[in-house]
Amino acid sequence: MLSEAQLARIDIVLVSPRNPLNIGAAARAMANFGFTRLAVVAPYEPHWQEARSAIGAEQLLRNARECATLSKAVATCTLVIGTGTVTLRKPEQQVVSLPDLAPIVEKELAREGRIALVFGPEKHGLTRENLSYCHLLVEIPTDVHEPSMNLGQAVAVCLYELVTRVIPDADTVSAPAASQPGVEDPVALSGQLDILAEVVEQTMIAADYSPLTMLAASRHDLRLLLRRLRINPSDSRRILGLFRRILWRIQRANGAGPDRG
Amino acid sequence: MLSEAQLARIDIVLVSPRNPLNIGAAARAMANFGFTRLAVVAPYEPHWQEARSAIGAEQLLRNARECATLSKAVATCTLVIGTGTVTLRKPEQQVVSLPDLAPIVEKELAREGRIALVFGPEKHGLTRENLSYCHLLVEIPTDVHEPSMNLGQAVAVCLYELVTRVIPDADTVSAPAASQPGVEDPVALSGQLDILAEVVEQTMIAADYSPLTMLAASRHDLRLLLRRLRINPSDSRRILGLFRRILWRIQRANGAGPDRG
Repeated sequence: MLSEAQLARIDIVLVSPRNPLNIGAAARAMANFGFTRLAVVAPYEPHWQEARSAIGAEQLLRNARECATLSKAVATCTLVIGTGTVTLRKPEQQVVSLPDLAPIVEKELAREGRIALVFGPEKHGLTRENLSYCHLLVEIPTDVHEPSMNLGQAVAVCLYELVTRVIPDADTVSAPAASQPGVEDPVALSGQLDILAEVVEQTMIAADYSPLTMLAASRHDLRLLLRRLRINPSDSRRILGLFRRILWRIQRANGAGPDRG
Repeated sequence: MLSEAQLARIDIVLVSPRNPLNIGAAARAMANFGFTRLAVVAPYEPHWQEARSAIGAEQLLRNARECATLSKAVATCTLVIGTGTVTLRKPEQQVVSLPDLAPIVEKELAREGRIALVFGPEKHGLTRENLSYCHLLVEIPTDVHEPSMNLGQAVAVCLYELVTRVIPDADTVSAPAASQPGVEDPVALSGQLDILAEVVEQTMIAADYSPLTMLAASRHDLRLLLRRLRINPSDSRRILGLFRRILWRIQRANGAGPDRG
């Protein structure tokens, strides 16, 4: 089993869950495998309250964080893993089969990262917008004729895989190696990347980089790009400082435009 | 993924399931992972019919076998695997943690065996009587504070483990090895062992081997003993023949007793 310290660095995030039974089942699987940190994003309120106040509801369900957006739910995470079946759309980031996930999680825990495992709503799964906050997609290898799993069962299978295949206390075991060269730096938090993306986007607008009609598409691509880069926190701050400076200059120039004309 | 031929040699058996939602969830997990053979033992009829006729019910649920006893459900199997959490009682047979199950299943498929994976009722799991039909117990490694899993989730986790960790077509791959010495013989079917146990028990009674008050306990121990031995089919027939002969002699002697007296 993973250590308590490791389990405390893995968040389970349910995006807009509908069925109170599924919410309860997800919480029960978490309790079965020793996970404690649950966040729900924009739940359907009546069902969420029903699940939360159900007799026999898990303590972790009552302690769950409720967030308006996925961006907020994963803001302190360094590795956001989306779950789902890649059938309809071409994925925009790396896809890993669940049995191959453990080494990636071990590495992230070893460098003191914080991980979110994100599950979409029952009917249609994570949206393209949701997925743009994910560094990685994980796919449960299901039958092509019946690929879509029940939410509670998908959570159980993913948590079972992590608990049984991630090497316990890999962070302690690999601690001496962490000081050696070649070990990867920590990466920026998801929330830092969101702030950076915001400033870059304002800069793009100020610089007339792309037409306003393309704004949503650019924002989406930018989010994915920043996650692909695996920027470390200090570089993230550096780039943010640079863009703030550029933005200020452009805005000043734009404002000063009439003076020069 | 396992081949269709391999999946067709693994039966999923639900003993006295109560909740129609759990029955549906178990069937859905089977469909997700490509399993097709479901048997239910002594289900609570109204709930079983409800699950079976539910809109969107899996085809495999409608094709499920309904058996009066576990003995009948697993009669053609050579390896019966019980599931559960070993907390309250001392197990009477080998216990394997789920992540270690795959090599055992591979070996059984390689020698053309038929496997049953047996799940108990929601409330209390498999009874001691149920367990005496099992060659092996498998345990899902859950948290000690919350060990008991939901039925549908337990089925999903077990099937995920088999599908992802059993080497696909291990029977084809290891076919050349099968003719080499040292590879284990096929083993007797569960139903053959039941017939043998019946005759041995009659012989014990006829021979006044143990008091009638001990009969239930002896029967239980005998069932477990025969499964521990992993008798091959021809030896099973040989032993059966021997006991039938002994039984006939004792009965004749008992019947002839007064003549000699």
